[in-house]
Amino acid sequence: MQTTQIRLARRPVGEPQDDDFETTTVELPELQDGQILVRAVYLSLDPYMRGRMSEARSYAAPLEIGDVVLGQTVCEVLESTVPQRAPGDLVLAYTGWQTHAVVDARQVRRLDPDAAPVSTALGVLGMPGFTAYAGLLEIGRPAEGETVVVAAAAGPVGSAVGQIAKLKGARAVGIAGGADKTRLLTEEFGFDVALDHRSATFTDDLRAATPDGVDVYFENVAGPVGEAVLRRMNTYGRVPVCGLVANYNATSAPDSALGFPSFMNLVLTRSLTVRGFIQDEFAPTHTEAFRRDMTPWVADGTIRYREDVVEGLENAVDAFRGLLAGRNVGKLLIKVS
Amino acid sequence: MQTTQIRLARRPVGEPQDDDFETTTVELPELQDGQILVRAVYLSLDPYMRGRMSEARSYAAPLEIGDVVLGQTVCEVLESTVPQRAPGDLVLAYTGWQTHAVVDARQVRRLDPDAAPVSTALGVLGMPGFTAYAGLLEIGRPAEGETVVVAAAAGPVGSAVGQIAKLKGARAVGIAGGADKTRLLTEEFGFDVALDHRSATFTDDLRAATPDGVDVYFENVAGPVGEAVLRRMNTYGRVPVCGLVANYNATSAPDSALGFPSFMNLVLTRSLTVRGFIQDEFAPTHTEAFRRDMTPWVADGTIRYREDVVEGLENAVDAFRGLLAGRNVGKLLIKVS
Repeated sequence: MQTTQIRLARRPVGEPQDDDFETTTVELPELQDGQILVRAVYLSLDPYMRGRMSEARSYAAPLEIGDVVLGQTVCEVLESTVPQRAPGDLVLAYTGWQTHAVVDARQVRRLDPDAAPVSTALGVLGMPGFTAYAGLLEIGRPAEGETVVVAAAAGPVGSAVGQIAKLKGARAVGIAGGADKTRLLTEEFGFDVALDHRSATFTDDLRAATPDGVDVYFENVAGPVGEAVLRRMNTYGRVPVCGLVANYNATSAPDSALGFPSFMNLVLTRSLTVRGFIQDEFAPTHTEAFRRDMTPWVADGTIRYREDVVEGLENAVDAFRGLLAGRNVGKLLIKVS
Repeated sequence: MQTTQIRLARRPVGEPQDDDFETTTVELPELQDGQILVRAVYLSLDPYMRGRMSEARSYAAPLEIGDVVLGQTVCEVLESTVPQRAPGDLVLAYTGWQTHAVVDARQVRRLDPDAAPVSTALGVLGMPGFTAYAGLLEIGRPAEGETVVVAAAAGPVGSAVGQIAKLKGARAVGIAGGADKTRLLTEEFGFDVALDHRSATFTDDLRAATPDGVDVYFENVAGPVGEAVLRRMNTYGRVPVCGLVANYNATSAPDSALGFPSFMNLVLTRSLTVRGFIQDEFAPTHTEAFRRDMTPWVADGTIRYREDVVEGLENAVDAFRGLLAGRNVGKLLIKVS
């Protein structure tokens, strides 16, 4: 059995280019005891992947040149050597940007297609949904009547943040780029206000949308949008930091109108809590509550989600560029086969 | 009865100048029921006062031009209208930069000179000690074997931070300016390592002093020292922020080699907690524990302190300049009379 793989050919400088990747088809190894052969159905594309393509120290080791690009997948089992997995089973795996793989059966989790569409295991019921849930509830801790702001609000993390904030009785202000997305925020995801960060009046719009200031800013974008929100934080405000997408393609230190000393002055004078996190941290403590809460919320439509499905692994690089530029709407998935 | 007062004559730009203040002697009002007449014995000088001299929004309203400069004092009661306070009592008050005052008897707290020298109510057993205690234990939460770093470590907050960290089993690294202070850190306050931030090799010294990185950085100085420590934070590191003294005299945005985007990248990739606080926040929850712990620690010499006592209210402005420039050693007090 063969697999077609997209590998890192060189480290991208700025926006990833086609030549930063190479596609190859290789023979898979023979199945050993305890292993399964899978074919990828969906590949998740997520902003964190950009960090792994760079050499800089991050929370995980960088990819090496020649590595298959990493990524979580929903796969179908084709062959199994263990009784717990049978051909036809759908599983959550971590096989990366490739069509097939041989993996340890213990490293996959079986999905129940009757409980929820299996693609949601990569989105609202998966890592992005969990990031929103754990980061908002554990760090953001929105109280009834407080104002929660999130950017990239049409994305899988942001849309879940807004909806969970609403369920907790908070006011949800979502920021996104363009009229299609902002409409989605209020009409589909129930945000109280949607702001277009491309608008020339964005700063004024933000002020008008947060007359009582901001209690929780769920930071996943950075850049001028993040800085504008930080300036509006209330005393004892909380800032869960789970991503800084605007900086991921930066080739030099990004501009900052706010500046570090002024930021620290905000932290001090407003008693802010700024807390970076990677969702793994909360897996041991929050996974059970996440499944107990989110599964029925998604099943009964209390929490809604959008998916942006791109056909074909050959379009992964272009789709990934679009993700970093904010061109997708909802959870970006590659339909591999 | 008259009082000699130092009032704010104009808002300082940069380092406070003599002409920013004016000294006047005025007649005090007649004592009303419920009031007491006091004379100041000690006036506490603290960096936060610089912020109140500026117009910018802070955690408290700025002083108005013509206001007596604010400050906590230890006073002797000269006359009383209430049975709970008698002439000769020593009380903790908030009478500011002046020799005498008429105050509401309920706004002062009686001090017991037999329990501890009354001046400590302005230092190790007062606001600076409480800032160290609550900020370190509630936000910093040092665990046994972790590394705690604090700057301005010969000051009343920093020296308490280091000593409490040691009592909790952590390794304490103190930063101060000059050989006299660094010697004090190890010989008097028990820091494991003392670093001189004026040394040309400070960054290398810091790296050598923190071979396992930094788990808690108690931030009270900002500037290049703070940035150097932040770069050494470990995953899940905590940064209580209680002051940014290096910036207090700044007339324009201070330089930052680190920069805000790089700082946020540290926060994200190392899952840092950065938390600004004003000690008032913890008064309702931590005062009892503070008194229960610190009073005996100070009484039996477990926790040591230094005081830098300047004679005469007329030297307050000069002493305050020295405080912002780091010229004092230990808690800076004005012996008013």
